[in-house]
Amino acid sequence: MKKLSFLFFIFLFQQALAQYQPHWQSLDQRKTPVWFEDAKFGIFIHWGVFSVPAWATKSNADGFGSGYAEWYWQRLFAPNLKIHPEFVAFHQKNYGNRSYQDFVHDFKAELFNPDDWAKMFEQAGAKYVVLTSKHHEGFTMWPSPQSWNWNAVDVGPHRDLAGDLAKAVKARNLRMGYYYSLYEWFNPTYKTDVDRYVNERMLPQMKDLVTRYQPDILWTDGEWDHPAKTWKSEELLAWLFNDSPVKNSVVVNDRWGNDTKGKHGSFATSEYGHGGTDNNEVNGFARPWEECRGMGESFGYNRNENLDSYRTGEQLVHQLIDIVARGGNLLLNIGPTADGRIPVIMQQRLEEIGGWLNVNGEAIYGSRKWEKAPKYTQDSPVYFTRKGEHLYAIVRKWQEEIIIENAPKPTKVRLLGFKGAVKFSYKNNVLRIEAPAVNPNTIPCRYAWTYAIMP
Amino acid sequence: MKKLSFLFFIFLFQQALAQYQPHWQSLDQRKTPVWFEDAKFGIFIHWGVFSVPAWATKSNADGFGSGYAEWYWQRLFAPNLKIHPEFVAFHQKNYGNRSYQDFVHDFKAELFNPDDWAKMFEQAGAKYVVLTSKHHEGFTMWPSPQSWNWNAVDVGPHRDLAGDLAKAVKARNLRMGYYYSLYEWFNPTYKTDVDRYVNERMLPQMKDLVTRYQPDILWTDGEWDHPAKTWKSEELLAWLFNDSPVKNSVVVNDRWGNDTKGKHGSFATSEYGHGGTDNNEVNGFARPWEECRGMGESFGYNRNENLDSYRTGEQLVHQLIDIVARGGNLLLNIGPTADGRIPVIMQQRLEEIGGWLNVNGEAIYGSRKWEKAPKYTQDSPVYFTRKGEHLYAIVRKWQEEIIIENAPKPTKVRLLGFKGAVKFSYKNNVLRIEAPAVNPNTIPCRYAWTYAIMP
Amino acid sequence: MKKLSFLFFIFLFQQALAQYQPHWQSLDQRKTPVWFEDAKFGIFIHWGVFSVPAWATKSNADGFGSGYAEWYWQRLFAPNLKIHPEFVAFHQKNYGNRSYQDFVHDFKAELFNPDDWAKMFEQAGAKYVVLTSKHHEGFTMWPSPQSWNWNAVDVGPHRDLAGDLAKAVKARNLRMGYYYSLYEWFNPTYKTDVDRYVNERMLPQMKDLVTRYQPDILWTDGEWDHPAKTWKSEELLAWLFNDSPVKNSVVVNDRWGNDTKGKHGSFATSEYGHGGTDNNEVNGFARPWEECRGMGESFGYNRNENLDSYRTGEQLVHQLIDIVARGGNLLLNIGPTADGRIPVIMQQRLEEIGGWLNVNGEAIYGSRKWEKAPKYTQDSPVYFTRKGEHLYAIVRKWQEEIIIENAPKPTKVRLLGFKGAVKFSYKNNVLRIEAPAVNPNTIPCRYAWTYAIMP
Amino acid sequence: MKKLSFLFFIFLFQQALAQYQPHWQSLDQRKTPVWFEDAKFGIFIHWGVFSVPAWATKSNADGFGSGYAEWYWQRLFAPNLKIHPEFVAFHQKNYGNRSYQDFVHDFKAELFNPDDWAKMFEQAGAKYVVLTSKHHEGFTMWPSPQSWNWNAVDVGPHRDLAGDLAKAVKARNLRMGYYYSLYEWFNPTYKTDVDRYVNERMLPQMKDLVTRYQPDILWTDGEWDHPAKTWKSEELLAWLFNDSPVKNSVVVNDRWGNDTKGKHGSFATSEYGHGGTDNNEVNGFARPWEECRGMGESFGYNRNENLDSYRTGEQLVHQLIDIVARGGNLLLNIGPTADGRIPVIMQQRLEEIGGWLNVNGEAIYGSRKWEKAPKYTQDSPVYFTRKGEHLYAIVRKWQEEIIIENAPKPTKVRLLGFKGAVKFSYKNNVLRIEAPAVNPNTIPCRYAWTYAIMP
Repeated sequence: MKKLSFLFFIFLFQQALAQYQPHWQSLDQRKTPVWFEDAKFGIFIHWGVFSVPAWATKSNADGFGSGYAEWYWQRLFAPNLKIHPEFVAFHQKNYGNRSYQDFVHDFKAELFNPDDWAKMFEQAGAKYVVLTSKHHEGFTMWPSPQSWNWNAVDVGPHRDLAGDLAKAVKARNLRMGYYYSLYEWFNPTYKTDVDRYVNERMLPQMKDLVTRYQPDILWTDGEWDHPAKTWKSEELLAWLFNDSPVKNSVVVNDRWGNDTKGKHGSFATSEYGHGGTDNNEVNGFARPWEECRGMGESFGYNRNENLDSYRTGEQLVHQLIDIVARGGNLLLNIGPTADGRIPVIMQQRLEEIGGWLNVNGEAIYGSRKWEKAPKYTQDSPVYFTRKGEHLYAIVRKWQEEIIIENAPKPTKVRLLGFKGAVKFSYKNNVLRIEAPAVNPNTIPCRYAWTYAIMP
Repeated sequence: MKKLSFLFFIFLFQQALAQYQPHWQSLDQRKTPVWFEDAKFGIFIHWGVFSVPAWATKSNADGFGSGYAEWYWQRLFAPNLKIHPEFVAFHQKNYGNRSYQDFVHDFKAELFNPDDWAKMFEQAGAKYVVLTSKHHEGFTMWPSPQSWNWNAVDVGPHRDLAGDLAKAVKARNLRMGYYYSLYEWFNPTYKTDVDRYVNERMLPQMKDLVTRYQPDILWTDGEWDHPAKTWKSEELLAWLFNDSPVKNSVVVNDRWGNDTKGKHGSFATSEYGHGGTDNNEVNGFARPWEECRGMGESFGYNRNENLDSYRTGEQLVHQLIDIVARGGNLLLNIGPTADGRIPVIMQQRLEEIGGWLNVNGEAIYGSRKWEKAPKYTQDSPVYFTRKGEHLYAIVRKWQEEIIIENAPKPTKVRLLGFKGAVKFSYKNNVLRIEAPAVNPNTIPCRYAWTYAIMP
Repeated sequence: MKKLSFLFFIFLFQQALAQYQPHWQSLDQRKTPVWFEDAKFGIFIHWGVFSVPAWATKSNADGFGSGYAEWYWQRLFAPNLKIHPEFVAFHQKNYGNRSYQDFVHDFKAELFNPDDWAKMFEQAGAKYVVLTSKHHEGFTMWPSPQSWNWNAVDVGPHRDLAGDLAKAVKARNLRMGYYYSLYEWFNPTYKTDVDRYVNERMLPQMKDLVTRYQPDILWTDGEWDHPAKTWKSEELLAWLFNDSPVKNSVVVNDRWGNDTKGKHGSFATSEYGHGGTDNNEVNGFARPWEECRGMGESFGYNRNENLDSYRTGEQLVHQLIDIVARGGNLLLNIGPTADGRIPVIMQQRLEEIGGWLNVNGEAIYGSRKWEKAPKYTQDSPVYFTRKGEHLYAIVRKWQEEIIIENAPKPTKVRLLGFKGAVKFSYKNNVLRIEAPAVNPNTIPCRYAWTYAIMP
Repeated sequence: MKKLSFLFFIFLFQQALAQYQPHWQSLDQRKTPVWFEDAKFGIFIHWGVFSVPAWATKSNADGFGSGYAEWYWQRLFAPNLKIHPEFVAFHQKNYGNRSYQDFVHDFKAELFNPDDWAKMFEQAGAKYVVLTSKHHEGFTMWPSPQSWNWNAVDVGPHRDLAGDLAKAVKARNLRMGYYYSLYEWFNPTYKTDVDRYVNERMLPQMKDLVTRYQPDILWTDGEWDHPAKTWKSEELLAWLFNDSPVKNSVVVNDRWGNDTKGKHGSFATSEYGHGGTDNNEVNGFARPWEECRGMGESFGYNRNENLDSYRTGEQLVHQLIDIVARGGNLLLNIGPTADGRIPVIMQQRLEEIGGWLNVNGEAIYGSRKWEKAPKYTQDSPVYFTRKGEHLYAIVRKWQEEIIIENAPKPTKVRLLGFKGAVKFSYKNNVLRIEAPAVNPNTIPCRYAWTYAIMP
């Protein structure tokens, strides 16, 4: 009896020491580690068995996500939806009676070079990376004991893709993160007994993932079928914030149940939002937010996308500017191939963004939105960020004269990357900047140009 | 509070009604359903992913089981054993860096016709069938939710092999049974947390298997790593005998832990025993026993076996006689191919046995061993069975005169399948039977001949 | 000028020396090497790309050859024939849009052991072997330069199957022969320009085959589209009989054009003839003849054949007896698998025949038909062969008394393989033999029994 | 006799009518159809079985062509060369004992859309297309009867790739051409009997190709082993120029034997020449010339090339300018994938070139080199072309002032694509052009800018 009392005392003591309790009221107290909001630009990676068929329709225009190649498996079983028979037709023509699971045979990743990848991400100016450790297909990119023979070490690549990438990414001082789908479309345990699924598969997997690889981001998804209570999200987060090896640095998104989006988590998420016109900021949720999208219209690699499906370097830089000016992060997605390569067109886009950030990064990294900025529209002439006392005006279309209202009075104005002086005048809280004369030899970059307004 | 008391009362009541408690003392009270001892001859089927490489060395002579094709996967990881490097060499030469799991891609069973199979078993004179529902590889031949994407419906054949066979077998009034391996060589949960494995995978699978297909035999194996307590065998058996849909008819073997063999279960087992010379009967275990073996030296199909590896029809009939005379059952194994066929040589052997049983079945089915029989040796001239007052003398090598000591006095002696009369004399408890003159046209069968000594 | 005259003289001289001219009148003068008629029993082997699908309908009963697995490719393009849609349906279900040529990818022969094969043939009592060096599919089993990338060394097995088998067969003093199809179903050169095909592909291939491997049998087929002139058969045979390395020993069959069957060649052929009732002997063609057939109803391996499709050992021995008694040879076919094995049921049948020949070979090898034999019918009680002054009476169904009319008067009668004496009487040119008493221990063999009637 | 004389007369008459005799003296009289020299920019396509492994080392820097993915097969058999063991190592690691020919199984072209391709070529500003109808591997991209079962219709794609592309290309009024390799590395007939190869395979194939698809370019290669006499090139060309359906429009290159390069043919060729510094023009060969190269360092698609291996749009446009200024054509290569796609990075480069040509094509198409141009070096400030009386000055690096010596006196100078006026002065045969002020909104294009100097 005495022994029991003592143990109970210990338990209470531990509870008292624990910073966070497994309920939102407590969990919401935790502040988002500042590195995340400073980072601004991350790389999303959708890679899995879906990278083998690597196919979707060319466009998402119908609004049913028919351009998402990573949803291929689900599409084969939802042919009644107006737009999905194309998937079934494609599958039958090219693969006959092969099942989706059979594709794993052709997922070999034989050319995968994680250090090459990490180097490309670094050169693109990204500060963090988020890999699909498990998508809705349930296939795990690490040797999860709970997913025996349906993971990248037991079958297919026969390699710990998640672990090897983490190592390379961290070696370059980028932050590593994992996407993890709570639900699994076709897992029979999930479909028939969600509690058992959560206890025996999902929670052990998430803890295993965090403990093994110590990621700084846990990016959940597939939460929409159930409330957070069912997923036991609060318990998981309490463990993550109190006891995990990344309790101090980790950030999590807001997808922890069909009742959490925009309410809980380290940051809010938006997906393929129309950054230029909509207001992605979550009202009343005083947390950072992040917009994610692919370079084309798919997350997983889609062989059916030609050049006209890809956003240009200019479009991507413009979107980054729009997002950062409004206080968010861009998580830009790439879709590697089944043999382990990043399609060269994606390398090209990364380089285009990296080139721009190389000149203009001062206005991006560590910046915050400028509270006095005018409300942005699709045609806004100028976007703003600030960092301490510095204000940055970014023009997406060259202007001979830039007029800024409510600007602080500068001592100097620079055009980032440009060697010459920049003339300006200030009167009645209005700053007028005169664009310098440039030519192809002297212009500092393409796509957009930043004036640093120095205090 | 009152409600709880009531529920507790109900619980006690149920316990009282339950015939068997989850401990051996109680479980051992259950009598083996008599159908099993009457059946005498069953068909064992080893079929699974191992049927794709379908290879082992030609001989088990070394005593290390190197001729077992169903152990292929394990052999690849035990190359230090003296005799197993051949498996590694074979694998590398023919499959390079493919993993064992990749073989499932070529397990298609596209020619599988369960009714053809069942008809062959029936014509062979078999009374029951035991299929590997899951061998040590962990692959399940039915859509087990606990083995998602490592079962015959999700991958490979894309068909419920276990269920379809059961249907066909039962339609011909044969008993259906399943082999089920308790352990799994490479299941990470099993290897690191056996309790979790037992609770979350093994027990649910066994109950699912029994509930879905209602087999009359549950033939466990792979029990040797742990005692029955670890496997929770007693709980499972209590459920099986009290609550399962087959509680009255089911029989189980004696492989329920490393402390149960020859001690518990409906019948004892022996494997590749030397039926002709050894004493397979389990001393002091007053239960039926069963000997199992392949037609060659492997259970799983072994492409490396030529005709000289196969027992002849005569050898198999002789072994059946030896086993039945000593009171046992023969569970004779066949190894189907990955495309779903029974190799024709196995059909041939089944037909040879069936032809013999067609003539001599009277002396086999429903028989018991004759307690007054002399001790059998490899060269025993005559084997005996009895059924009620009938005694059967089976000669494996033709003799002109058969002398039987301690025989009851007959009123008549028949040579099964022979139309003519058989002369005999009886004196001093010794029966002398004179073989009738026969020629190729009149001899009733090959291999061995039965004299029915009628009271 | 003088030099030319000299060369012309040499040419004429050579022509004079040449034994055979390239026209039938001359070619028909060549006597069939006696080894062939003495051999009596050979093994036919149909092996090729067709061994991969290895499928046909179960029966040839329709008379359209729908049970021939080696015709699979052709069947896919003849679905209008009443019985062939089954092939198209099978193909689509199991292989989708794969073409026949794609099958070569799965023709690996990785378990092929030519010495094992040759040993089996020897033990079966066969004296010669005929392998499909090229069937109608055009795929060559040797590295034919005229069939680049459509032969067994360039693709598929990556091994000289024809050469390796010849070596092993000859090492056991069996005669080696090759089947060679003159036509090729889908060869575009053949289909559009047969002369070009004959000159550029067919003739070079046949000469290459003979020169490389020096076979003693050249077994042509696929001749029915054109007369011998088109195939230039006479030229080929003149070369074969005059100049080839096997000019003295080689035998050829009668399939050299749609105008040669039963008229020219070393021996006449029949295929799946009803040996027991028909008269296979070619009237007026004073040459040996040969009957060929499979153990089931296909030449190429047919996975769709179960035991009930295979002839029993007894049926095959009975057919051999029938053929030899009528003066012919039996060329019994086996169909190896794509991985290079002889199905064990075929090994079983070979052993059954070999066991019979081991006892009764004296009455078979080197024998000729007995001119005084009664005309055989399906139910003939006794078959006869002779060798010099010895007469052999072979009974396919045991008889207590054998009565032979027109028999020579014997000095002794033996039952081959039986140790005891055999009683007989002779009166009015009628020989009466009394069968000895036998039992399973003393009977010399199964299936049929031979009385040697010694002068 | 009379009939014969008459036929001989007809023959002589035909010969007299025939414009070209089968010897170089005559063949060289034929003028290169002017369309070719006017076209300036074509697309080369290397596609074949080599597109399946699609691998080479990353760089050709060693000078041994180790970056050429289309040479993969040959590399596997030349491992003694210092740089090629990498191919063998790659092959063994990834494909084990598969042969090169086995790759055809994975060449499916299932996503090939020839009209999409043609549209891309048209939008890139190309005027002609040259596809590998057969590379050194001997695999034909059309159903060549001489290459049965080693062509794209019989195996692999099961589609007439050469024909389908020609149709689409011609539909957009681009010129279609075929690359054709005279030799074949591993063709046994070629290796042992070149005459037979030429007569029975090569010449029939070339005529078949021309007759079926009527290409305007025949681009031979692999000629270096033998002189033109061996290849019978003169006969083929006489047929092509006299009798073929494209006798008026066709152009051929200079690779017709190891004695023809830079001497005979419609145009001279150079490959991966250093266009900026070398002199590619063939001295004394008064014919057009063409430079060919890939976007990276391989012709066939090389999965081992990342972005840093690809030339930028700027580099490619600069090379085009350099070549055209010196009077040549650029044949820029793309390497499609085995599934039939043009890698999107290549689409990107095509679009970059197309965008530039859209503005500056006036200075390129139909132009000739300016004879009074200064000798170009790698750092030449200005390149020139002329068309009639128009002179075009193309600056690859923006200059505030362009000085042109020996220029004709202009009436006007335009900056192509620029709306404003351009100031210039002319004195002492020296033209000075003053660059207009531009900014990102007004500059007409990237990479290079053209001043049209109008008479």
